Amino acid sequence: MAYDWITLTTDFGLSDAFAGAVHGVIARLAPQVRIIDVTHAVHAGDVVRGAAVLAQAVPHMPVAVHVAVVDPGVGTLRRAVALRTPGGLLVGPDNGLLPAAAAALGGIRDAVSLTNAAWHAGTVSRTFHGRDVFAPVAARLALGEPLEDAGEPVDPDTLVRLPEPVLVAGEGYLEAEVLTVDRFGNVQLAAPGTALAGLGDGLVAGGLPARRGATFGDARPGELVVYVDSADLVALAINGGRAVVALAVTPGDMLRVERAHSAN
Amino acid sequence: MAYDWITLTTDFGLSDAFAGAVHGVIARLAPQVRIIDVTHAVHAGDVVRGAAVLAQAVPHMPVAVHVAVVDPGVGTLRRAVALRTPGGLLVGPDNGLLPAAAAALGGIRDAVSLTNAAWHAGTVSRTFHGRDVFAPVAARLALGEPLEDAGEPVDPDTLVRLPEPVLVAGEGYLEAEVLTVDRFGNVQLAAPGTALAGLGDGLVAGGLPARRGATFGDARPGELVVYVDSADLVALAINGGRAVVALAVTPGDMLRVERAHSAN
Amino acid sequence: MAYDWITLTTDFGLSDAFAGAVHGVIARLAPQVRIIDVTHAVHAGDVVRGAAVLAQAVPHMPVAVHVAVVDPGVGTLRRAVALRTPGGLLVGPDNGLLPAAAAALGGIRDAVSLTNAAWHAGTVSRTFHGRDVFAPVAARLALGEPLEDAGEPVDPDTLVRLPEPVLVAGEGYLEAEVLTVDRFGNVQLAAPGTALAGLGDGLVAGGLPARRGATFGDARPGELVVYVDSADLVALAINGGRAVVALAVTPGDMLRVERAHSAN
Repeated sequence: MAYDWITLTTDFGLSDAFAGAVHGVIARLAPQVRIIDVTHAVHAGDVVRGAAVLAQAVPHMPVAVHVAVVDPGVGTLRRAVALRTPGGLLVGPDNGLLPAAAAALGGIRDAVSLTNAAWHAGTVSRTFHGRDVFAPVAARLALGEPLEDAGEPVDPDTLVRLPEPVLVAGEGYLEAEVLTVDRFGNVQLAAPGTALAGLGDGLVAGGLPARRGATFGDARPGELVVYVDSADLVALAINGGRAVVALAVTPGDMLRVERAHSAN
Repeated sequence: MAYDWITLTTDFGLSDAFAGAVHGVIARLAPQVRIIDVTHAVHAGDVVRGAAVLAQAVPHMPVAVHVAVVDPGVGTLRRAVALRTPGGLLVGPDNGLLPAAAAALGGIRDAVSLTNAAWHAGTVSRTFHGRDVFAPVAARLALGEPLEDAGEPVDPDTLVRLPEPVLVAGEGYLEAEVLTVDRFGNVQLAAPGTALAGLGDGLVAGGLPARRGATFGDARPGELVVYVDSADLVALAINGGRAVVALAVTPGDMLRVERAHSAN
Repeated sequence: MAYDWITLTTDFGLSDAFAGAVHGVIARLAPQVRIIDVTHAVHAGDVVRGAAVLAQAVPHMPVAVHVAVVDPGVGTLRRAVALRTPGGLLVGPDNGLLPAAAAALGGIRDAVSLTNAAWHAGTVSRTFHGRDVFAPVAARLALGEPLEDAGEPVDPDTLVRLPEPVLVAGEGYLEAEVLTVDRFGNVQLAAPGTALAGLGDGLVAGGLPARRGATFGDARPGELVVYVDSADLVALAINGGRAVVALAVTPGDMLRVERAHSAN
């Protein structure tokens, strides 16, 4: 099966030519394939963030070969892998970056370790596998070359997986890990939107008064709003402001959202 | 009429997957259409800046469906609209973002409120209409579906419009609002280049000595130059420096440019 | 000869519509041509950095018309040029930006000064030749119009060239200019990887203990590693950190890498 699209999710940034080089390698090998840049601004080496961004993006992408490279262990013994899912292929390092996206695409059907050097660049640098391994492999897969030819089969159960983010929900409260903070300073928790059911409209979040709303503009300017975001996760925003500043949290921190006590 | 191109102008940034998701939605619905990213770095929620960037960009774009999303009121009662102009279509929130670009494209011929839910995503989030409303509508318009089918007709006179920026010109001076500041620190005024006629070469701008020039290199290093920029507006630059720092202005501020008095 | 690809390397940034406008102009003139953005984040006016990024990127690009614009002298008497090489065409200002890339593509075969105004925009701004000169020229070259029609032939020996970066190698040491610093804080020297031969594994770099490695993960966390990077140049990194901070260098600085003395 051939693919019309390759998507890219990396921590390469855009200030160097790293992302450009990946585009170039794909253009040389598979010129008809088109590329969607999901983002190249995952924080350097932040595999957790990369995994979350990728998993939230793939449902909105066309059927594609999804390449993800956040790879602080590049050039070491960590495996490079490609995964087949019902919704497309995933290519990247075996460091926990891919499994959440694979789940979002329907689960891993087959996994391969990218050991077939004939698919890589003629000379493989030790520090830029995005260009020398993942891009040429993705190009060949997009052209329809079989996944099995990319290397040795791998038992999906042996793939590195990130720990599940912490989520505790009880009577009148939830405590969840901060998963991401976006450009607008909105804070996304590792909690499904359904976790808000039963908490009511008057809330306390991170110790601050907050209200349940459907969108930013449901709150007064400066007011903290708790809502279900576009990835169906619990999130916090400030209408016209930056919730991340008011809450003073960073990804990985725990945040508590609870029912406000009646005034007394 | 079908369109080969969609352009995107947003405040989504590139550090999340927001812009990528819009690309993905369009690729799924209208895979043949090609996308030009005008910019995704409008300051968060800065409708004035977004309107200026969009209006200055569209004259250089191919005939297209131009999508613009700077939308702090997303999910509230503000309308979502599409506008037909002689030079293409515009799609975005009805918050003042689009009219200046519409004027640059020849004026509004028809306006539609995007009320046809069948054109939107199956489930529309309350906080990401770029992905769930504007992208699918733009894809359908690019495929040639008629504008009239996107929703209810709207009287163009009812569209939200931004206030006209202030410009006062008199004998030997002009005072104008700072419209934008670009990456190089160049300061663009809301004044047409013709407003400089008659002021001569020796100038005072924001209280600082300046000279009329045609380009940065016409000034000595460190010298302030007043010129007509690539959008045909009055602008100020410092050869090898940042005029915005020397002038200490920000968009919305008033700046006075006047003829220098002869030494006495 | 026609070209399917145009690449762009500029200091336009992505916060304005400059890069978008270049895409738009090319789409209007040569809609079939596809564009690869190498980077638009060369530091403003940093010709040395632009030349290095471009030269390191072009070997990984498809055959293309490579447009590079880092052009602090735009609108002055500096020439605008196009160069033919065995590996493609280069288009940009004659300020030292292009020759290293031309060498990487096999050397300059022909050079032309872009004096044919019929190839430029109808009105050429004095400050944005990327949009008004280089983009339309590149589009026409990509469509197969002959280089000779772009303007007057130029003797390649008269092209502006940057000084060669300083490199001194001796018994047990090398001193080289810092060429670039990348997003990860890795420091690239203007020294070929072969310059490390014979220095051994225990090193001192910029006065700090370091070790020879093949990739970041070969060092302990926090340890400085000297390696050959993906451009085959000597580079320094810190596993999990930022070498540029530890070394406190900036491009243009000299850095010494030497054999560590035995403990005594």
